[in-house]
Amino acid sequence: MAVINSTGNFRVLQWSKLKNKAHREKQRLFIAEGYHLLSEAYKAHCLTELITTEKAAPFPVPTYQVTYDVMEKLSAMATPTKLLGICRQRDETAPGTQILLIDQVHHPGNLGTIIRSAVAFGVDTMVLGNSVDVYNAKVIQASQGMLFHINILKRPLPDFIAAIKKEGFQIIGTDVREGTPLHTVKSAKKRAILIGGEGDGVDDALLKLCDTKVTIQMDDKCESLNVGVAASIVLYGLAHVSTL
Amino acid sequence: MAVINSTGNFRVLQWSKLKNKAHREKQRLFIAEGYHLLSEAYKAHCLTELITTEKAAPFPVPTYQVTYDVMEKLSAMATPTKLLGICRQRDETAPGTQILLIDQVHHPGNLGTIIRSAVAFGVDTMVLGNSVDVYNAKVIQASQGMLFHINILKRPLPDFIAAIKKEGFQIIGTDVREGTPLHTVKSAKKRAILIGGEGDGVDDALLKLCDTKVTIQMDDKCESLNVGVAASIVLYGLAHVSTL
Repeated sequence: MAVINSTGNFRVLQWSKLKNKAHREKQRLFIAEGYHLLSEAYKAHCLTELITTEKAAPFPVPTYQVTYDVMEKLSAMATPTKLLGICRQRDETAPGTQILLIDQVHHPGNLGTIIRSAVAFGVDTMVLGNSVDVYNAKVIQASQGMLFHINILKRPLPDFIAAIKKEGFQIIGTDVREGTPLHTVKSAKKRAILIGGEGDGVDDALLKLCDTKVTIQMDDKCESLNVGVAASIVLYGLAHVSTL
Repeated sequence: MAVINSTGNFRVLQWSKLKNKAHREKQRLFIAEGYHLLSEAYKAHCLTELITTEKAAPFPVPTYQVTYDVMEKLSAMATPTKLLGICRQRDETAPGTQILLIDQVHHPGNLGTIIRSAVAFGVDTMVLGNSVDVYNAKVIQASQGMLFHINILKRPLPDFIAAIKKEGFQIIGTDVREGTPLHTVKSAKKRAILIGGEGDGVDDALLKLCDTKVTIQMDDKCESLNVGVAASIVLYGLAHVSTL
């Protein structure tokens, strides 16, 4: 195992650039931390290099043993992890029949939670409009590594929605008050669910492009749900409604 | 409106003690920040005093205009808020028929999210076993003020469960893999739903006390859901199953 002792080492300098979104996009790489996330990365063939302060190399990929100082420079955690991996971004693939469209989700924890639930409920492709970067450390953490198991596209949503409507997809938008109650909705086999952001939910212009609007019925005392929760309930709910 | 300029003022010293859990419990008071949370506090008759750096007093309760320094001393935010309230903890009342039992939820954001969803889906009483303090600033924030609208009890859960079973409550525990699928469960009119913590879900000893175990079915790629999401889906799901 190669040993790196200096924070000025050229590999360390290259890796640390991945803390910056522009570099992540250019290199199609990102950093994930901790055994659990990296085991998901490895399963998905996304783990390219491993960096550790310990002697063991838990995955059969090129591994570098580094000092605490080096790890501190690379880690996004308040207390640096012992195990950190350089991961490749998955290549984009053509969407299947279960799409999730995400607009204006800006809190990393919420986007991560949505990714985790999307994998849990059979979404094959997530399409991100204007949202927080999916390769942000907190998103990866909150996704519990599930972002390694889903096809992720970045697209302007109006154009993307127009394109998949032509292919026969039903577009289902969430509406806080005025939609069909979720448990009574009928869903097509090819569907795209549209989730809006933390503030005001789905943007009106996008909502107009939807074939169906669904509402999660709730007590009047509560104005709205957390966006990660709302997205998850819609995904769960649509898995148990009748199909068109 | 009274004006306070000094961080050493006796009221400021009393208020700042509420940043400590032991003092919150002793005085049955806590701090909430920002207009939205305080409007929920006011609606629920829980807002006792208002502290602001501005001249306006948006609620008709005793209001103190303070300096930025004073606000910085009282606020839990990185950037202090302009409006902060002293709120009383609700008096405990007897549970109704919709109870949520929470064990070992330690992340403030998760507990807050669960409280928000509990109010949304008609829970009247939350019973907290060993969990993060409900009056922690981050819990209050994540609850979006919904903690002002729900009866909250702190009890050792085994004893509490034994007592409500005698009163005919169905105890429904969440089990990650081995329960009845949520959408096929039958629910009694008097029910208590048991949610476990971030790590391993519901504790085995508590799960043995349950009459019914429910599972949220999901893709094998995903080991588990975020606990706030899982709790919310169970609450939503049980609102739409047939009753015993």
